Amino acid sequence: MKRALRYTSTVSALPATVPFTGPESMERAATGQPFAARLGANESVYGPSPRVVQAIADAGPDVWMYGDPEAHDLRHALARHHGLIADAIVVGAGIDGLLGTLVRLLVAPGDPVVTSAGAYPTFAYHVAANGGALHAEPYRDAFEDPTALVAKARETHAKLVYIANPDNPMGSFHSAAVIQAMIADLPDDCALALDEAYIDLAPPGAAPLFDMGDPRVIRLRTFSKAHGLAGLRVGYAIGAPVTIRMFERVRDHFGVGRLAQTAAIAALQDVEWLRHVKAQVAAARLELADIAARHGMAALPSATNFVTIDCGRDGLFARRVLNGLLARGVFARMPLVAPLDRCIRISCGRPQDHAVFETALQGVLADLAGPDTDAGA
Amino acid sequence: MKRALRYTSTVSALPATVPFTGPESMERAATGQPFAARLGANESVYGPSPRVVQAIADAGPDVWMYGDPEAHDLRHALARHHGLIADAIVVGAGIDGLLGTLVRLLVAPGDPVVTSAGAYPTFAYHVAANGGALHAEPYRDAFEDPTALVAKARETHAKLVYIANPDNPMGSFHSAAVIQAMIADLPDDCALALDEAYIDLAPPGAAPLFDMGDPRVIRLRTFSKAHGLAGLRVGYAIGAPVTIRMFERVRDHFGVGRLAQTAAIAALQDVEWLRHVKAQVAAARLELADIAARHGMAALPSATNFVTIDCGRDGLFARRVLNGLLARGVFARMPLVAPLDRCIRISCGRPQDHAVFETALQGVLADLAGPDTDAGA
Repeated sequence: MKRALRYTSTVSALPATVPFTGPESMERAATGQPFAARLGANESVYGPSPRVVQAIADAGPDVWMYGDPEAHDLRHALARHHGLIADAIVVGAGIDGLLGTLVRLLVAPGDPVVTSAGAYPTFAYHVAANGGALHAEPYRDAFEDPTALVAKARETHAKLVYIANPDNPMGSFHSAAVIQAMIADLPDDCALALDEAYIDLAPPGAAPLFDMGDPRVIRLRTFSKAHGLAGLRVGYAIGAPVTIRMFERVRDHFGVGRLAQTAAIAALQDVEWLRHVKAQVAAARLELADIAARHGMAALPSATNFVTIDCGRDGLFARRVLNGLLARGVFARMPLVAPLDRCIRISCGRPQDHAVFETALQGVLADLAGPDTDAGA
Repeated sequence: MKRALRYTSTVSALPATVPFTGPESMERAATGQPFAARLGANESVYGPSPRVVQAIADAGPDVWMYGDPEAHDLRHALARHHGLIADAIVVGAGIDGLLGTLVRLLVAPGDPVVTSAGAYPTFAYHVAANGGALHAEPYRDAFEDPTALVAKARETHAKLVYIANPDNPMGSFHSAAVIQAMIADLPDDCALALDEAYIDLAPPGAAPLFDMGDPRVIRLRTFSKAHGLAGLRVGYAIGAPVTIRMFERVRDHFGVGRLAQTAAIAALQDVEWLRHVKAQVAAARLELADIAARHGMAALPSATNFVTIDCGRDGLFARRVLNGLLARGVFARMPLVAPLDRCIRISCGRPQDHAVFETALQGVLADLAGPDTDAGA
C-alpha cells in the first residue's frame, strides 16, 4: 500500500494553491529589492505610536512568558474604551484569526453563508476551508448592498452573513442607520460578521451602538490599521457575551502573544497618536485623489486608509495599470471581481510614497497610451 | 422567534468551559500579586537571547508591516539549520496553532485519533473541536507507549496519532531508534504528529533523522521553550513537502507576525545562548532532584526544561501538595490523569526560584503531615 494520508473531504476538495501573495514574495520574484512605495496592504505607513515602540523595547526581555490566555488587561482596557463589559470582548490573532474561529463555530460542510462578490477574500477562504456554501451578492456601485445580503440570507437560510463597514476594497461606507436597519432585518437565527477594520478612519456616525442584547452581531476590530500594529497580530471581536463565550470552545487560547497584548494596550492609550494618524490619512486621501485627477482618473470617496481609483475602463486595463505600477516598484493591489476590477487600490502614504506612485503612474499611462503596448499584463 | 445562532453540531456538543487557566488568572483570583516563582508553564525563565532582545527593540518601529505570509527568511534559516529544503517547513503560531491546523486537515466528525491518556491536553482539545473520536492509551510508567499507540491506531484505523518526544508532562524520552521503529510500524495511511517541543533540551540521540520521503510524519518544533520566545508565538512543522503543502489550504497565512519572525531568526543564530540555556537547564534539573530527595520525594529523569516529581502517594495527595505550593506563591502544574497524577511538575528555574520552591514545599509537607489538614484541595 502506498503511504498517503486521508485528508478530510472538505480539505481534499480545496484548491491546492491559495492567492495570498505577500509583497515580500513579489519583491523576491522581481528585483529582490524592497518596493519603493509599499502601498498595497493598507498598512499604516505612519507607523505605530512612539509609546508603542517604547513598550515593545521594554517588553522584549519578558517574551519568555506566554501571553495571558484571557488577555485580561487588554480586554479590560478595551471594555473601558468602548464602555462595555469585558465579557463582551474576545481577543484574537487579527481579524483574519477571529473570522476563522467564527466560521468554525457556525459553518459545517454545506451550510449556507452570504457575502459580497469581491469583498474580503480571507472570509471566503475560511468559509471554503470549512466546506460552507458561499453565496455572493454583487455590490451596488461602490457599495456593499445590505438589503440584498439580508434578502439572500433569508432566501438561503444562511447561518452567517459578512459585511465590512467601511468596505474593503472599495473604501465606501454606510451610515450607522443603514447598518442598524440591516441588523433589524436580519433573520433571527443568522449571525452577522460586521468587519470594522477601518472604523477608526471612517467619518463619525458609521458605527452603530453596541447592542449587548443581540446575540447575532459580531463586530470585528483590529490594531493592524489605524494603530499600525499589523506585524503583531492583534484584533478583537465584540458581541453579546452569550456569543463571545462560544469562542472559548474552539479558539487558540495562547494564540495572542504577550508582546502583542502589551503593545495593543499602549496603542489604545495613545489617543494623540491616533488623532495624528487620522489627520495624516485625511490629507493622504486628498493627495491621492489629486494625483488620480491629474491623470484623468477618478478617486472614489474613502472612509479608510486607502483610496480606490477608477481607471475608467475595464478590468484588463486596470490590471495593466497595476502591473505597470508593480514593475516600477509600487506595491498596490486591485479588486478581484468585475465590475469592481476597473479600479486599483492605493494605501495612504507619506508625500514621498505618493511622489513615487505618481511618477510610476505617469510612466505606466504613457506606456499604455502608446501603440500595442502591454505593461506586463 | 427567539434570536439564537445555529452553531455546528460539533461545537454545540463541546463543553462550555475549557481548562486553560493561565498563571495570570490564578494570580488575579488569589492575591493579585505575581507568583513568587513562575515554574508552571515550562517557560524558559533564563529569558531570550540578548541578541533577540536587541532585535525586538530594533524591529519595533516596523510593526506597522504585516509579516511575510510565506515566512521566507525564517523558513530558509530553519532549512539551513536542519539541512533541509524550505518546502519541508511551515511556520505557525506555536505548536498549539500548528496542531490545530493539522487536526483540521485530517479530522472530520467521528474520525478516529490516538493519543496517550494524560498527554498534552491541547491536542485533545483540537481533536474535540473537530469532532474527532479520541482513543487514549495509558503510559507505561513514565513513558508514552509507542507500541500501544500504533496498535491502537491499527485497531481503530486512526487518521492521526500524537506522541511527544520528549514527553510532557512526564519529562521522559525515547531514543531515536524507538521512534523510528514506531514510524516503521505505523499504518501507511496514518499520520504521526511527533511533538518535539523539548527536543533542544533532550540528550543527543532522541531525534530520528528527517525522512522527506515519508508523507506521514509531521515533526513539531517551537521557539517557546529552549529559545525563550513563548510570548511571541512561533513554531514550525517539518515534514515531506507533499504534506507540508497541505497546510497552505487552511492555515492563517498572516498568522505569524513580523516581529515574531525577526526574533526567531535572531534566536536561531545565537547558538551560544542556546548552549547557555541548556547548561542552566541541566544544572536546574539536578537542583530540583536534590530538593525532591531532601523531602523524601523522587524526581523522574528529565529530558526537558522541567522536572516531574513523584510525590509518592496518590493523586489526591499530589493535588494537595500542588495547591499548597500555589497558595505559597509557587506557580506549578501537575499531570491530570491517574496514575501520572501522583506527580507534580516543576519547570526549571534559577537558584532564587528553586529557593522559593523549596521553602514552600517544606511548608506544605509540614502542614500535610499534621492532623486533619487540607492545604486547599
